Amino acid sequence: MTKVIKNGTIVTHDLTYKADVLVDGGKIIEIGEGLTGDEEIDATGCYVMPGGIDPHTHLEMPFMGTYSADDFESGTRAALAGGTTMVVDFALPSPGQGLLDALKMWDNKSTRAHCDYSFHMAVTWWGEQVFDEMETVVKERGINTFKHFMAYKGALMVQDDEMYASFQRLAELGAIAMVHAENGDVVADLSAKLLAEGNNGPEGHAYSRPPQVEGEATNRAIMIADMAGVPLYVVHTSCEDSHEAIRRARQQGKRVWGEPLIQHLTLDESEYFNQDWDHAARRVMSPPFRNKQHQDSLWAGLQAGSLSVVATDHCAFTTDQKRTGIGDFTKIPNGTGGLEDRMPMLWTHGVGTGRLTPNEFVAITSANIAKILNCYPRKGAIRVGSDADIVVWDPEAEKTITAGAQQSAIDYNVFEGKKVKGLPRYTLSKGRVMFDTGKMLGQEGHGEFVKRAPLGEVNKALSSWKQITAPRPVERSGIPASGV
Amino acid sequence: MTKVIKNGTIVTHDLTYKADVLVDGGKIIEIGEGLTGDEEIDATGCYVMPGGIDPHTHLEMPFMGTYSADDFESGTRAALAGGTTMVVDFALPSPGQGLLDALKMWDNKSTRAHCDYSFHMAVTWWGEQVFDEMETVVKERGINTFKHFMAYKGALMVQDDEMYASFQRLAELGAIAMVHAENGDVVADLSAKLLAEGNNGPEGHAYSRPPQVEGEATNRAIMIADMAGVPLYVVHTSCEDSHEAIRRARQQGKRVWGEPLIQHLTLDESEYFNQDWDHAARRVMSPPFRNKQHQDSLWAGLQAGSLSVVATDHCAFTTDQKRTGIGDFTKIPNGTGGLEDRMPMLWTHGVGTGRLTPNEFVAITSANIAKILNCYPRKGAIRVGSDADIVVWDPEAEKTITAGAQQSAIDYNVFEGKKVKGLPRYTLSKGRVMFDTGKMLGQEGHGEFVKRAPLGEVNKALSSWKQITAPRPVERSGIPASGV
Amino acid sequence: MTKVIKNGTIVTHDLTYKADVLVDGGKIIEIGEGLTGDEEIDATGCYVMPGGIDPHTHLEMPFMGTYSADDFESGTRAALAGGTTMVVDFALPSPGQGLLDALKMWDNKSTRAHCDYSFHMAVTWWGEQVFDEMETVVKERGINTFKHFMAYKGALMVQDDEMYASFQRLAELGAIAMVHAENGDVVADLSAKLLAEGNNGPEGHAYSRPPQVEGEATNRAIMIADMAGVPLYVVHTSCEDSHEAIRRARQQGKRVWGEPLIQHLTLDESEYFNQDWDHAARRVMSPPFRNKQHQDSLWAGLQAGSLSVVATDHCAFTTDQKRTGIGDFTKIPNGTGGLEDRMPMLWTHGVGTGRLTPNEFVAITSANIAKILNCYPRKGAIRVGSDADIVVWDPEAEKTITAGAQQSAIDYNVFEGKKVKGLPRYTLSKGRVMFDTGKMLGQEGHGEFVKRAPLGEVNKALSSWKQITAPRPVERSGIPASGV
Amino acid sequence: MTKVIKNGTIVTHDLTYKADVLVDGGKIIEIGEGLTGDEEIDATGCYVMPGGIDPHTHLEMPFMGTYSADDFESGTRAALAGGTTMVVDFALPSPGQGLLDALKMWDNKSTRAHCDYSFHMAVTWWGEQVFDEMETVVKERGINTFKHFMAYKGALMVQDDEMYASFQRLAELGAIAMVHAENGDVVADLSAKLLAEGNNGPEGHAYSRPPQVEGEATNRAIMIADMAGVPLYVVHTSCEDSHEAIRRARQQGKRVWGEPLIQHLTLDESEYFNQDWDHAARRVMSPPFRNKQHQDSLWAGLQAGSLSVVATDHCAFTTDQKRTGIGDFTKIPNGTGGLEDRMPMLWTHGVGTGRLTPNEFVAITSANIAKILNCYPRKGAIRVGSDADIVVWDPEAEKTITAGAQQSAIDYNVFEGKKVKGLPRYTLSKGRVMFDTGKMLGQEGHGEFVKRAPLGEVNKALSSWKQITAPRPVERSGIPASGV
Repeated sequence: MTKVIKNGTIVTHDLTYKADVLVDGGKIIEIGEGLTGDEEIDATGCYVMPGGIDPHTHLEMPFMGTYSADDFESGTRAALAGGTTMVVDFALPSPGQGLLDALKMWDNKSTRAHCDYSFHMAVTWWGEQVFDEMETVVKERGINTFKHFMAYKGALMVQDDEMYASFQRLAELGAIAMVHAENGDVVADLSAKLLAEGNNGPEGHAYSRPPQVEGEATNRAIMIADMAGVPLYVVHTSCEDSHEAIRRARQQGKRVWGEPLIQHLTLDESEYFNQDWDHAARRVMSPPFRNKQHQDSLWAGLQAGSLSVVATDHCAFTTDQKRTGIGDFTKIPNGTGGLEDRMPMLWTHGVGTGRLTPNEFVAITSANIAKILNCYPRKGAIRVGSDADIVVWDPEAEKTITAGAQQSAIDYNVFEGKKVKGLPRYTLSKGRVMFDTGKMLGQEGHGEFVKRAPLGEVNKALSSWKQITAPRPVERSGIPASGV
Repeated sequence: MTKVIKNGTIVTHDLTYKADVLVDGGKIIEIGEGLTGDEEIDATGCYVMPGGIDPHTHLEMPFMGTYSADDFESGTRAALAGGTTMVVDFALPSPGQGLLDALKMWDNKSTRAHCDYSFHMAVTWWGEQVFDEMETVVKERGINTFKHFMAYKGALMVQDDEMYASFQRLAELGAIAMVHAENGDVVADLSAKLLAEGNNGPEGHAYSRPPQVEGEATNRAIMIADMAGVPLYVVHTSCEDSHEAIRRARQQGKRVWGEPLIQHLTLDESEYFNQDWDHAARRVMSPPFRNKQHQDSLWAGLQAGSLSVVATDHCAFTTDQKRTGIGDFTKIPNGTGGLEDRMPMLWTHGVGTGRLTPNEFVAITSANIAKILNCYPRKGAIRVGSDADIVVWDPEAEKTITAGAQQSAIDYNVFEGKKVKGLPRYTLSKGRVMFDTGKMLGQEGHGEFVKRAPLGEVNKALSSWKQITAPRPVERSGIPASGV
Repeated sequence: MTKVIKNGTIVTHDLTYKADVLVDGGKIIEIGEGLTGDEEIDATGCYVMPGGIDPHTHLEMPFMGTYSADDFESGTRAALAGGTTMVVDFALPSPGQGLLDALKMWDNKSTRAHCDYSFHMAVTWWGEQVFDEMETVVKERGINTFKHFMAYKGALMVQDDEMYASFQRLAELGAIAMVHAENGDVVADLSAKLLAEGNNGPEGHAYSRPPQVEGEATNRAIMIADMAGVPLYVVHTSCEDSHEAIRRARQQGKRVWGEPLIQHLTLDESEYFNQDWDHAARRVMSPPFRNKQHQDSLWAGLQAGSLSVVATDHCAFTTDQKRTGIGDFTKIPNGTGGLEDRMPMLWTHGVGTGRLTPNEFVAITSANIAKILNCYPRKGAIRVGSDADIVVWDPEAEKTITAGAQQSAIDYNVFEGKKVKGLPRYTLSKGRVMFDTGKMLGQEGHGEFVKRAPLGEVNKALSSWKQITAPRPVERSGIPASGV
Repeated sequence: MTKVIKNGTIVTHDLTYKADVLVDGGKIIEIGEGLTGDEEIDATGCYVMPGGIDPHTHLEMPFMGTYSADDFESGTRAALAGGTTMVVDFALPSPGQGLLDALKMWDNKSTRAHCDYSFHMAVTWWGEQVFDEMETVVKERGINTFKHFMAYKGALMVQDDEMYASFQRLAELGAIAMVHAENGDVVADLSAKLLAEGNNGPEGHAYSRPPQVEGEATNRAIMIADMAGVPLYVVHTSCEDSHEAIRRARQQGKRVWGEPLIQHLTLDESEYFNQDWDHAARRVMSPPFRNKQHQDSLWAGLQAGSLSVVATDHCAFTTDQKRTGIGDFTKIPNGTGGLEDRMPMLWTHGVGTGRLTPNEFVAITSANIAKILNCYPRKGAIRVGSDADIVVWDPEAEKTITAGAQQSAIDYNVFEGKKVKGLPRYTLSKGRVMFDTGKMLGQEGHGEFVKRAPLGEVNKALSSWKQITAPRPVERSGIPASGV
């Protein structure tokens, strides 16, 4: 049974052209004019784009004795409803837990996924076992990205020397370092101080993580990555401080990518000052929302290419879960939703305003990250041979975002009331229509794990450069006898 | 008669993979494994890449009663020998000459071209005729790029108000503004001062055009372009000063591209201090070579994406022509060669060192400029349907550059003695093998003019943004009666 | 008759200490504890500071057939009421008018001044007469600062080559270049475009002079000044764009100073969107007010030292005069008041918030500019031998600014309704009390012209550096015979 | 017995004028023309300047079982010979040692000083005792500056949370934080790696501490200081990376000062590549010398005011001591001399070239640091009432620096062979001539400890700002009941 997407305009990260797309066996098998297939999908007036890739989700993530409310089932359902066809989640070992052991847990969680997915491995502690298992994770499990938390002191946080050791190991293995960049020491002490001073509301969360605390950690991670000779991916770049560090590094030829979230691009810190505690608490995430000036910086970074990817950090907690933090903002589970809304919100505020071209939209929602993660052009492309992960995008379709109509398991939506123009008409995962004009046609377990090989082009180039510029001893004909 | 390029690794701006390429009728008609054709081109051990595009040449350019020594025949021959399959030259109207009239002259010059070419239109004076003919140039002649000289006072130079008027016209037409950015007033006065002080050697040329003189003009052009709402392409970005202006602009979301030359990336100002007058004079071009620090800035810009394209400004004058300027550096014809050397030099110093990935090499030698000029993917791509402008690149081949072995008509080479590793094995122009392992198989007149449509994606996005953010009058209920 | 200021705390740009100040013959003759004099001025609870210097006023300036409403009488009266004891006005030659001739006119205007004053000479056109008279202006008239308008096309504006020539002349004479930095070509064309589109209200004025238009001109002036080897003073630096250019230049070792105005530090562009035409028009000045982000930049520049002086550009027009521009914002006389309010507004928003120390307040209101203008420590200091231009400042005194109570001749105040804390108790001009706790005791003609010598320390250092780094010809043993 | 310095030109940080200086009882008692005294010091042709203050020395510093070779006797003798009249040394507690206890040790060392001195207190570990004793150190011992080592892991280094705690304590006490900014984790691991790879020579020391390792730590310290609300002084700012962090911070209104050393301004990394092991090892210090580009950055920072002070980090070890590190660069004692050479080298390369005015020279060699340390105008000024710490500077005197003629106890000089123009003719410490035209007239024990009070103007302003902008809880009428 072949399918043909007809009458649309294909938009990839570097091309816009009219053509039909023929799909078979989960793959794109032909692109051209006047194609026919067993089944026809009408894309009249629509753009035919690679399905979105969200490289930053936390589905069914364990947290304080509970779990984030969206699991791989509801999370990937939400993704597909919003035009996203692949998610990358984080496998998080507990303290002392082996990497492979943690991966098994994530394997189990992900069996119900509606769309393809992959994992980043988190390095939450350091030791010989971690060092050793990294090789297996890279070579056998097909994971080439390792995340390090510079915050969450006493839990996930790693120290500079651990990070440096881990980054060097990644450089050897041809993998990529990722960081959650906030100075965990300062956040911890400042949080305690704020609580002691009576700042216990959700706005205290924002106070406890000012932009410069993120900027500092970003800058530090960049230095350590460059010393180790490993490319660096900075997740949830929320502010000018962090963006500045990234673009300064890039201007020194360093290989660093920044990932703003759709939330930071479109929502601001005033949300935390809302009179309604629930409203504010539902928006608690790390880093917190920033002001308009930071938003401008992030948008410009996407235009200029100093920022590369838009993600969500989707990590949804219900209002009930959020209320754990009443009277103590440090107990509010960190995280918001966004999987269903990322693509429409970015299209509306990016393409709709002229800040982004449609091609740039594709680049930052799928192609760029597929390249970084080394799964391009299987993902992120409309090409013969690529997976048929496709969104048929109607630039004229409009809706108002509301929790009542969403796929996510939670009872609210941080974009509630926002009008968007530009929505998926169809979303296909590996050739199967999962979303059709507002209707979910998902299938649990349809999603599969996507392996990603190490030693991408950037790793190789960086290694060459580091080898060429490595320190070399001065040849000396004679050295004095020791003085002591 | 079909041709198949076999056993190579295709490298485009975003992909590296093993496949054969089948060519027919000047186009790529199939890409895949195990292809066969009437004729076979062996690419074993080679990369199969889009032929280079050099967007900045001056072939047979009139100058001080003579012409630059390479015309479209020898110039495009040199291009092909170096793996470049398309050049874009500048049609330069004389003072008061109409644009269309000038284009006719360039049409005539270009009939002997071995490879495809296009033109940028220069705006060398301003008036109603120019304003009117711009529309024809864009809509009928297929030229969407217009260059403005901010230097060469008394000759090609235009004033700010003329530039602003021209840029606004370009915005209307959906075209792109280009600038030669140097402050012509300062250059002219400083040149006179240097001569008066006895600084009449070729090094005086470098003294007369310091980096900040270029940086200033770049910054000015960027402001004017943004005010006019037109994308801007800055030719021969030679220094940190200019690069800084470009990347600052990009970080404000402005649509600006910078084009370093291979000369500025690999040669430095010490050339002008050579004891041999000829040596120094042969390297006189504008802007002049800079120091290592500026070179580092340019390389990093290519890595970071703040600079987009590497060109040559190929404008070759013989030693005899150069000697016109003995005793007065302002009379030394400005220009150097580079068409044959751009790709090998950039590969050697870029990919060979790990500063660039092979994909980035393709991006900055062809794909990026093809997109900017709006002739992608006809050019700059290895895709079914693209022109078969292909270079089969042997990364292990080596040579030492020497004028004795070059295609260019001149008697020296500014890269004389440089060792390069990475050379074309074959160069194909529209399916025809023009260069085969060191041997030229060119055909005069094989090259054709490439039309390029206006209203590219970036123009459209920028127009939307400018419309949304346009000034709007304040509605006032009452306005006082005039006081005077 | 000696006067002693008792019981106060002396605050200079670099010291804070308790001491009395003894004044005689218009000079400070002793500083110490327990001094006595014929007359006693009580400074209990007060700071005893150098009187403010406002280096940027336009009193009785000819404009469109009328004059700015405050002349040297009312203007200097306003100054004294606000703690300012010296103003520097601009002598503006008409097109073709000689410098010395223009100076005579300003000599006449200034005879009624209540406090000391000096002039900057404006270079509004270029020619041999100007070149020649510059020497007399510097050496005989004691004026070492020359202003150039890069805006006001068709009137005061000079071209780049004129500016470069003038700047070189200033370098020779050991004087300082000043610029009004806005790109006059763009402003003129944009203004016409805005009017044509129906944007004729006062907000059109703001639209016609965006920050980048100022930033560009600042950057250009800096380059030209550095090429000429002359220190540069940029008047009314209103925005980050301009400030960025200044601090970038300073970070290259260039000698550049920036002067924000108190208006730009404390008022923003929303004023132009006021429903009341008069309200908006009264605030029309060039550059226009900017947004909060620009304000933050200016404040930080004052803290960091990248901006040096706070002035007013006091150029007051009555509402009636402003109404000349009804229906055409380009006809609204440019200028606002501020002489009386600069010091209290800056103290309130600077020292009162902790952004500035009291010493920094003195530095940027008097000492820095006195040094730049080369009249320190005669002015800008509390030192034995200095002129007794002193303000006794009561940090606890409060008022609400209102036009009804002001000295200025105009019928409104752009700071109307602003509360200030920190006000002069006494203002002394050359030992004479001109303002006493809200009461003016001025005397017309008390003020005298302050001569200022050229060849300040910065000029001398810059000249040395330029000499050391000047271009030198390469010595060549043989030069080829000419080729043509 | 009064002394009068006659016929000289007084140069302070803000004035240049001809006057005599009368000294009595260790103080300046009169400044004026035609003064007479019991003893006359001829300053004909000379500048009379405040004696230099070197805020960064390590005299008789314990290190690896030995001590730095210059103690307070030879160190202050060297200082006076070079025109420096005050040094500030670091009291370094051993791990677990109390602050007051360490101070006692430094009190003992300093009894032999020829000139005045003060101490910075180092915080080398953190605990309740340190927290408590800080108050005594500030209020009773007169020390308002506390240094933190971010490097020297396992020895002096403190962690981020300790630094944050200490900085908050300093903010409370009105003191100033200082940092040695290098990332100790990276330095330690990189050093081990270099040694393992056979990079054991002195150049390995430079390799182990690249500029970005310093830049990172500087940036981190700045963030922590700003979060704590304390002014920050960054010692030995050696590179653009660190300078960039400092000036970026200053441009955000942060209160940060940077201190380049005379060594980093005038010597470069090529010293470490010297064939002679001793030559290279003698120059081992942290941070190491950098390249010319970094030097340019430092000079420009001094001109622009983004860097404030030039010091030496004088910590002299003999060649024999240096040789402890043969075969292992990590064992080479870190430190070089400079006390005698700082002023002549800075004058020669700063004032002599026109990079600095004589006033700026005074500012960065004495006045600025005196203000920062809160001992101005007792020190750093030529004022009535100031200590008569004076250098009579002969701008025409020349010499070639050589170890053979130096005061320092060590057997070499890192400036060996450098020609300087501009030397002290006389150096007076508290009115006593200690150096007379090349001859030392020192007196052991003449120097006294200089107390410095907390709560300087900058501290007060910063506290106000932090209070005004402190986080405040949102007032909410109702908060939901806990959900869990």
